[in-house]
Amino acid sequence: MTIDRIQADHYRIPLPRPLSDSTHREIPGFELITVRVTTTDGVVGLGYTYTVGRGGRAILALIEELGEVLSGADEGRIEDCWQRMWWALHWVGRGGAVAFAMAAVDVALWDILGRRAGLPLWRLLGGSNPKVPVYAGGIDLYFTLDELLEQTRGNLDRGFRAIKMKVGRDSLDEDVARVAAMRKFLGDGFPLMVDANMGWSRHRAVAAARALAPYDLGWLEEPLEPEDVEGHALVAAEGIPVAAGENFHNPAEFKPLIEAGGVQFPEPDLACCGGITPWMKIARLAEAHHLPVTSHGVHDLHVHLLAAVPNASYLEWHGFGLDAFIEHPLTIVDGKVTAPDRPGHGVALDWKGLDRLRA
Amino acid sequence: MTIDRIQADHYRIPLPRPLSDSTHREIPGFELITVRVTTTDGVVGLGYTYTVGRGGRAILALIEELGEVLSGADEGRIEDCWQRMWWALHWVGRGGAVAFAMAAVDVALWDILGRRAGLPLWRLLGGSNPKVPVYAGGIDLYFTLDELLEQTRGNLDRGFRAIKMKVGRDSLDEDVARVAAMRKFLGDGFPLMVDANMGWSRHRAVAAARALAPYDLGWLEEPLEPEDVEGHALVAAEGIPVAAGENFHNPAEFKPLIEAGGVQFPEPDLACCGGITPWMKIARLAEAHHLPVTSHGVHDLHVHLLAAVPNASYLEWHGFGLDAFIEHPLTIVDGKVTAPDRPGHGVALDWKGLDRLRA
Repeated sequence: MTIDRIQADHYRIPLPRPLSDSTHREIPGFELITVRVTTTDGVVGLGYTYTVGRGGRAILALIEELGEVLSGADEGRIEDCWQRMWWALHWVGRGGAVAFAMAAVDVALWDILGRRAGLPLWRLLGGSNPKVPVYAGGIDLYFTLDELLEQTRGNLDRGFRAIKMKVGRDSLDEDVARVAAMRKFLGDGFPLMVDANMGWSRHRAVAAARALAPYDLGWLEEPLEPEDVEGHALVAAEGIPVAAGENFHNPAEFKPLIEAGGVQFPEPDLACCGGITPWMKIARLAEAHHLPVTSHGVHDLHVHLLAAVPNASYLEWHGFGLDAFIEHPLTIVDGKVTAPDRPGHGVALDWKGLDRLRA
Repeated sequence: MTIDRIQADHYRIPLPRPLSDSTHREIPGFELITVRVTTTDGVVGLGYTYTVGRGGRAILALIEELGEVLSGADEGRIEDCWQRMWWALHWVGRGGAVAFAMAAVDVALWDILGRRAGLPLWRLLGGSNPKVPVYAGGIDLYFTLDELLEQTRGNLDRGFRAIKMKVGRDSLDEDVARVAAMRKFLGDGFPLMVDANMGWSRHRAVAAARALAPYDLGWLEEPLEPEDVEGHALVAAEGIPVAAGENFHNPAEFKPLIEAGGVQFPEPDLACCGGITPWMKIARLAEAHHLPVTSHGVHDLHVHLLAAVPNASYLEWHGFGLDAFIEHPLTIVDGKVTAPDRPGHGVALDWKGLDRLRA
């Protein structure tokens, strides 16, 4: 069958309380861009991507162009569709907003393939283990220590058995004090990760890696801007594993960072690296380099991908406010979630609820 | 003074005859996106960027967001404005369409600075030599040999003393035959370059570099996809200098390619690498590596930048149909053009003429 039409919609999802990290300072809400791909025989696949507040209209315009590019294409030849999209928008693409637009369409195509096959995505992609360890990704840099511990108590109550917190405050001493307090609160051996969101210089990042060494951290995420390959390798040489990749929107960017030893936990985000198609390639590249793969954002989709590959690390959980509009949210049991057995990705959105948030 | 408002407009510029290269096959026209930045004291700066036919609406939407980001900013602190734009759209940016949107705004800011100072851009940027060698950038892969030679005759008549032609046909023999015919037509020593527009595999690119070695080419441009750093170094090792960079929309992408010896003629395009601000940094990076710098597209703007730096190579000339709407087009005299002495970049557009081509 072939693609009949692609419908894109744009929403602004407010957050119950503003989040904070070292890049964006305050994040009052996210943009959600949805895609519905309809085939000539009436099958509908769902895809979506998101932004931290800007760029949604551009992504919408790009998806409309992708609708022209893919009109009449065999929707089951996903790699062919992906290459068509990549080359049709190559001049303004190779990453950036185009990677978000392509991601939303790519997810919808995989959803259709799964629905037609009657298989959940994680089985369609090869099927490893549906039970995936999950961590709570706190976006909490400017929370007071009390607020941070209160959030952590809530996360433990919800079933999380691994937690990530933000670092990158003005003073490194503040970062160390917050991490020390969290380590004391959680106890030895509890998986704790930190995320600097590119907030540091090379010198500060190396100093931070040394100062945080006593706290047995699972990883140190985005110590530097993603372009600084050598810098990542310098930080990693200090001993704490480095996670990075959410800001790579061209999948080819992972290779030099992996080869330089600058990342131990590659962390592609399917919603901004071009979709499931490149995410799986990045996971295979990590596997070939004897590395695990983790994820960033959109946990309802990533759960399938981590359940499919043998080198899965943690699934990141942060819902950017979308949780309230998802019909079958994942349930956390003793630190794990289970990839659903519904065909495709199995995510259904509350369109009526979303309609009130149309941008 | 500060920025009062930013107006963006979107046009479709048809070409008198379709152009062709190995990436896009046929190019019937370009999109032009213009920006007018108005300061609180009424100075207006002009910027523009272009696409090969897709993505213009997205760029327009992104410029509108940049208008919000820069509202009230000191327009004379261009680096500060650039960083604000980079970080405000970082999540959907780091290249791609955002780099085009930023480029158009950045050009307008430099235009304002030059107008206020009463200096042409090439002097404002340090002033090296206003006379810049120029070459005709043919987009002619699927022209017959007769058409190619006819175009070349016209270029010689117009004053060009250096020419680039496309390669990347299905058969390497065809490419070699066309290059041989051009070399014979132009004579020994006439500067002739070729451009493969990423059309080759690594193996084919190396084979082509060997097969084209007898024809004394000035450079071999874009033999491979820009992501393939090692591949570029393999091709360059065959002896013909390599030009590359028009598809880098994040200026940081030049560093690894330069360091790997994969490019001998870095070729940033200010209209798609984020503007004049990053273009100058790339030129300085090339200089630090003892390399020349060349340009891609928008010759009416690039002439100033090549006139400003000591390591200038050729200016590329291809007008993507815009020439008809520029009030003071450059004049080619014995293979060179002269950067104008009007304040700012000195480009004025025929807004009435453009109005008929509004997208």
